[in-house]
Amino acid sequence: MIIVMSTKAGDTEVQKVVDLLEGRGYGHHISRGVERTLIGAIGTPDGEKRTLAEQLMTMQGVERVVPIVRSYKLVSREHQEQTSVVYIGSAPFGRGNIGMIAGPCAIESAEQTVTAAKAVKDAGATVLRGGAFKPRTSPYDFQGLGEEGLKILAEAGRQTDLPTVTEAREARHIDLVARYADAIQIGARNMQNYDLLQAAGETGLPIILKRGLSATVEEWLKAAEYVASVGNLNIILCERGIRTFETITRFTLDLAGMVAAKNETHLPIIVDPSHSTGHHSLVAPMTLAALASGADGVMIEVHPHPDRALCDSLQQLTPRNFTRLMDRVRDLSSAMGLQLGNTAREA
Amino acid sequence: MIIVMSTKAGDTEVQKVVDLLEGRGYGHHISRGVERTLIGAIGTPDGEKRTLAEQLMTMQGVERVVPIVRSYKLVSREHQEQTSVVYIGSAPFGRGNIGMIAGPCAIESAEQTVTAAKAVKDAGATVLRGGAFKPRTSPYDFQGLGEEGLKILAEAGRQTDLPTVTEAREARHIDLVARYADAIQIGARNMQNYDLLQAAGETGLPIILKRGLSATVEEWLKAAEYVASVGNLNIILCERGIRTFETITRFTLDLAGMVAAKNETHLPIIVDPSHSTGHHSLVAPMTLAALASGADGVMIEVHPHPDRALCDSLQQLTPRNFTRLMDRVRDLSSAMGLQLGNTAREA
Amino acid sequence: MIIVMSTKAGDTEVQKVVDLLEGRGYGHHISRGVERTLIGAIGTPDGEKRTLAEQLMTMQGVERVVPIVRSYKLVSREHQEQTSVVYIGSAPFGRGNIGMIAGPCAIESAEQTVTAAKAVKDAGATVLRGGAFKPRTSPYDFQGLGEEGLKILAEAGRQTDLPTVTEAREARHIDLVARYADAIQIGARNMQNYDLLQAAGETGLPIILKRGLSATVEEWLKAAEYVASVGNLNIILCERGIRTFETITRFTLDLAGMVAAKNETHLPIIVDPSHSTGHHSLVAPMTLAALASGADGVMIEVHPHPDRALCDSLQQLTPRNFTRLMDRVRDLSSAMGLQLGNTAREA
Amino acid sequence: MIIVMSTKAGDTEVQKVVDLLEGRGYGHHISRGVERTLIGAIGTPDGEKRTLAEQLMTMQGVERVVPIVRSYKLVSREHQEQTSVVYIGSAPFGRGNIGMIAGPCAIESAEQTVTAAKAVKDAGATVLRGGAFKPRTSPYDFQGLGEEGLKILAEAGRQTDLPTVTEAREARHIDLVARYADAIQIGARNMQNYDLLQAAGETGLPIILKRGLSATVEEWLKAAEYVASVGNLNIILCERGIRTFETITRFTLDLAGMVAAKNETHLPIIVDPSHSTGHHSLVAPMTLAALASGADGVMIEVHPHPDRALCDSLQQLTPRNFTRLMDRVRDLSSAMGLQLGNTAREA
Repeated sequence: MIIVMSTKAGDTEVQKVVDLLEGRGYGHHISRGVERTLIGAIGTPDGEKRTLAEQLMTMQGVERVVPIVRSYKLVSREHQEQTSVVYIGSAPFGRGNIGMIAGPCAIESAEQTVTAAKAVKDAGATVLRGGAFKPRTSPYDFQGLGEEGLKILAEAGRQTDLPTVTEAREARHIDLVARYADAIQIGARNMQNYDLLQAAGETGLPIILKRGLSATVEEWLKAAEYVASVGNLNIILCERGIRTFETITRFTLDLAGMVAAKNETHLPIIVDPSHSTGHHSLVAPMTLAALASGADGVMIEVHPHPDRALCDSLQQLTPRNFTRLMDRVRDLSSAMGLQLGNTAREA
Repeated sequence: MIIVMSTKAGDTEVQKVVDLLEGRGYGHHISRGVERTLIGAIGTPDGEKRTLAEQLMTMQGVERVVPIVRSYKLVSREHQEQTSVVYIGSAPFGRGNIGMIAGPCAIESAEQTVTAAKAVKDAGATVLRGGAFKPRTSPYDFQGLGEEGLKILAEAGRQTDLPTVTEAREARHIDLVARYADAIQIGARNMQNYDLLQAAGETGLPIILKRGLSATVEEWLKAAEYVASVGNLNIILCERGIRTFETITRFTLDLAGMVAAKNETHLPIIVDPSHSTGHHSLVAPMTLAALASGADGVMIEVHPHPDRALCDSLQQLTPRNFTRLMDRVRDLSSAMGLQLGNTAREA
Repeated sequence: MIIVMSTKAGDTEVQKVVDLLEGRGYGHHISRGVERTLIGAIGTPDGEKRTLAEQLMTMQGVERVVPIVRSYKLVSREHQEQTSVVYIGSAPFGRGNIGMIAGPCAIESAEQTVTAAKAVKDAGATVLRGGAFKPRTSPYDFQGLGEEGLKILAEAGRQTDLPTVTEAREARHIDLVARYADAIQIGARNMQNYDLLQAAGETGLPIILKRGLSATVEEWLKAAEYVASVGNLNIILCERGIRTFETITRFTLDLAGMVAAKNETHLPIIVDPSHSTGHHSLVAPMTLAALASGADGVMIEVHPHPDRALCDSLQQLTPRNFTRLMDRVRDLSSAMGLQLGNTAREA
Repeated sequence: MIIVMSTKAGDTEVQKVVDLLEGRGYGHHISRGVERTLIGAIGTPDGEKRTLAEQLMTMQGVERVVPIVRSYKLVSREHQEQTSVVYIGSAPFGRGNIGMIAGPCAIESAEQTVTAAKAVKDAGATVLRGGAFKPRTSPYDFQGLGEEGLKILAEAGRQTDLPTVTEAREARHIDLVARYADAIQIGARNMQNYDLLQAAGETGLPIILKRGLSATVEEWLKAAEYVASVGNLNIILCERGIRTFETITRFTLDLAGMVAAKNETHLPIIVDPSHSTGHHSLVAPMTLAALASGADGVMIEVHPHPDRALCDSLQQLTPRNFTRLMDRVRDLSSAMGLQLGNTAREA
């Protein structure tokens, strides 16, 4: 990190900073400019950088501390240059492989889920999704079927030969979810629930990590680093919109942020056009936009009868509209050289 | 709720909406204007409003559905007009009673915590705070002492005769925290962790519920409604800054939003000038601003040696600066007719 | 508009609202629900709606006033259902016609501008852009060449047979700009500079109206309504990113907001992937995303030597990268059924 | 500035950066760390910093360029340590002097303006405000009285012996406004209208510069630097709320940002609790909060009959409520050691 001294800092203040660095066993490098002195700290270990920076900023004569190294490592392209391919069951994500996750917002019944599963499978989806634990903003809303829902999802997956993903809301549910699903989704509101990240990571299952609705790309990658730090690099990031002043859409889908994140990390990134926009009429355009800009897949809500859905009616596609969208996705993929559909896992 | 039909909707579309409402057993009321027809739905139960609204919006000819009733009840001023007084131990918050919560960001050691506790008690604090479980954004940062920290906090409380509050990060920690602390804090990142809200609420202990960093006032009050819905109205809300484009402060402290929230809810609301601003030089001005605008208390980080703190060095006050601030708080309180300090609980 | 009375409002308060409406000559319609009374105001003219709503909200017993009709008309799809085609010179925008605007951020010299113009023409651009008046955030930055720049732009347009567009910063420059350019761009910071909008609109030239960096879609359409209200419907809207908490990109490109805007307005909308992202590596993915999601064109900065550019070096493409991008645009357009290139104006 | 090279940059890339710096006549300083090489550029003139930084960032091997020096000078506390006192007529702002600006949102008639002026004068206001040119978001709203309004404002000022301030919307109005008013207000939407800033600055009159609704503190100070750079340091900054996701208030009043700005600049800063909150019930609390946190004054909208106002009915105080607020302001000022009221200008 670089310590920027204020224009008024004298030799005493500079020396105190140097003494602190030396006392902790770090190297340093002084650069005296026309107006200011800069001090570079050398060899500070990752686990101490943030605390050290904050402590330095409390010192007399220190104007700012500028970090140089990023706070994530395992998930960065500096650590691994080539994009990772992550599999959910037989469905690959990354390096030109597009994963299509689809299914209802919430699992409401066996019939609803199996109907949706068959429809999305026929249309070309590669992974089945469905929520058993729904984090709702009002205590008076439908909260999901819990374990019963997980069983239904697993059965629908078996009947359609689709791998499944569902959300886990807290650490104590992880074992349960891991018993039934092929991948664990961490929701946007839990992106910084570190106990949950760790518990999910330790299952070794693929993790879909949604971006927090007010998380910067850097914070998102740090959250992924939490999962990676317990030894699980089967991570798929999911851009699902950030909160901004604009309310014509439910959230603001940040596709440029997604591409900027891909420049930083080797992990595959998918996009959720359903939750981010909150409106079925925007799902198709945003799916095409996501894939055109380089997303490694999408996650789309499909319900046999959106007008009777127990949650998020407005953003769910009918099977018919999903099928139409998949036709357009195939046209686009073929023009852009993308690979759709499940493949034998690479040896 | 009011269903706004589009200008092009004909009698058929209007009738279909009416049929759906009648089929569910609700009343309705039709108003035909110059350009549009409006349909009022009457008698829809709280638990079905949101789902119904979303379903209606998927219907042909429906342009918008406008909710009329708020989605929180027990915490609203419609439910109870007068501001509640909530006690943490002997420290009252609300209705002119100002609670002063102070203590270190993280509990690092018995010595550090007891020193801080004595200093803040001497200066006039009414509740002691300290973190045992720290939600840190990087896996390489200090994570807190856990149960050992809780013991230290309780002991520091006993020695200074100050009630204590500490944060619980997840549902499985609630019993542990409830064993040691007089109040449970729910952090900003967990404001919508509904399992945690419910578990905390069920202890019956006072709950400090921080506003999520991208939560609207409405969502914050809905989260409080979750706690209230399990029968616990000992809730103190805490404004701690929201995320905006401005980065000169760590977050943007939303004092006007706090006052607007107080217009809506009878619950007391306090302000956290430390986390919201992220800089010790802003803590005193924002404390005074909070109290001048009607906050029912503040929560301030105080550390014996901020320059050696293991977390958030930059935003913690020295005991000396906290003491100076308390002098100014007393001047302000006296000019504004506010009541500082602990009192015998009202009979 | 609908006046929502509070639960505590009695007959007196309701009557006072009715009296005010009748006094102004408007109709009304009362709907008494289980908890609240709603009053619909009927026949209020557009020019009085906002003022009336604010006045009503100051009355005793009035909880909220809910507007029903949008505040823009001429630019709405209610006014005209089919998307408009707007021409800049011979270049069409809208209804499947994609306009490709390209050129340097700032006009620095005749050589630089003509070189850029020839390169973008060869690659397939349909309109030439270049800035003569640069609104820079620091008084110490390069401010543009003024009229000299306009002459260079016009000459480069003539040599390449490309129509031209350039930004006007204030009303007194409009005549000057109109003398040299084929279209006038209104910058994001001037989206609500109503004198400028009016002056630009009155030229009758096509107007490219950039979205303000903190403007909602509704405010953007209201600004377009200003231009339309002076009789000029040759308006092309331009999404160029909004300001959010995310700083990894310069602004947050709001493609879903762009599509949502297209659902509301018949005006064509283009996207500026250069300014919105601020980084050349994001220009190609965002161009493809914009077109895949339904944008009617893009505006891209191209400079012969970005590393020597006097403004926005980082976001300008080299001619070579622009040419490569245009190849991918052609592949995408052909897969999506879009029409690239200039056409004879429709009879 | 510091050029941070990527971990993969070799000697060739470093040398090319050094060559570019030397070729432009700047010094440099190389620091080789464990992972990266840093290059400090020395002696780069202000007018070239931004362009140079952007050009450097396009070079191979350059990861980031970190600016060290701020982009404002004359308005910074580095340039002048002590807070400036700026006068509007006889009303001082800064260094413990609180200026109270009050008056109607828009000048509607002589009677309305004179009534308001007398009321605010009696209550203790020190400056009279009123809008003659209203920037309204819809072309169908009331736009202000123009020069007629300016005459009324000047006359109301004469009758009450209050100095006046009014907003100028564009450069060509500056002479007109300067003829009638004692100070010129630059509105939030014009904060980066540099032609207007320059024209206003050149009058030598005091300028009230409102913060743009999506402007960072740094951009706000840069805008002030524009005014200062034409030789006018009679600048009063005005915090008026920023745009965020929260809509319960009209904007989010950023008091902590205001204090952070005061740490950076010697210019006085006032607060507008009317426009920022948009609701009269929030004006008093936010006025007290502003003054308690160190603001140098406030600007408050007062209308004889808010319920009949032609603009912003909801946020204007009645004379009676303004008088009550002034009583509380006096209590607060006296407790905090602030000076209210006009004084003889310092010799």
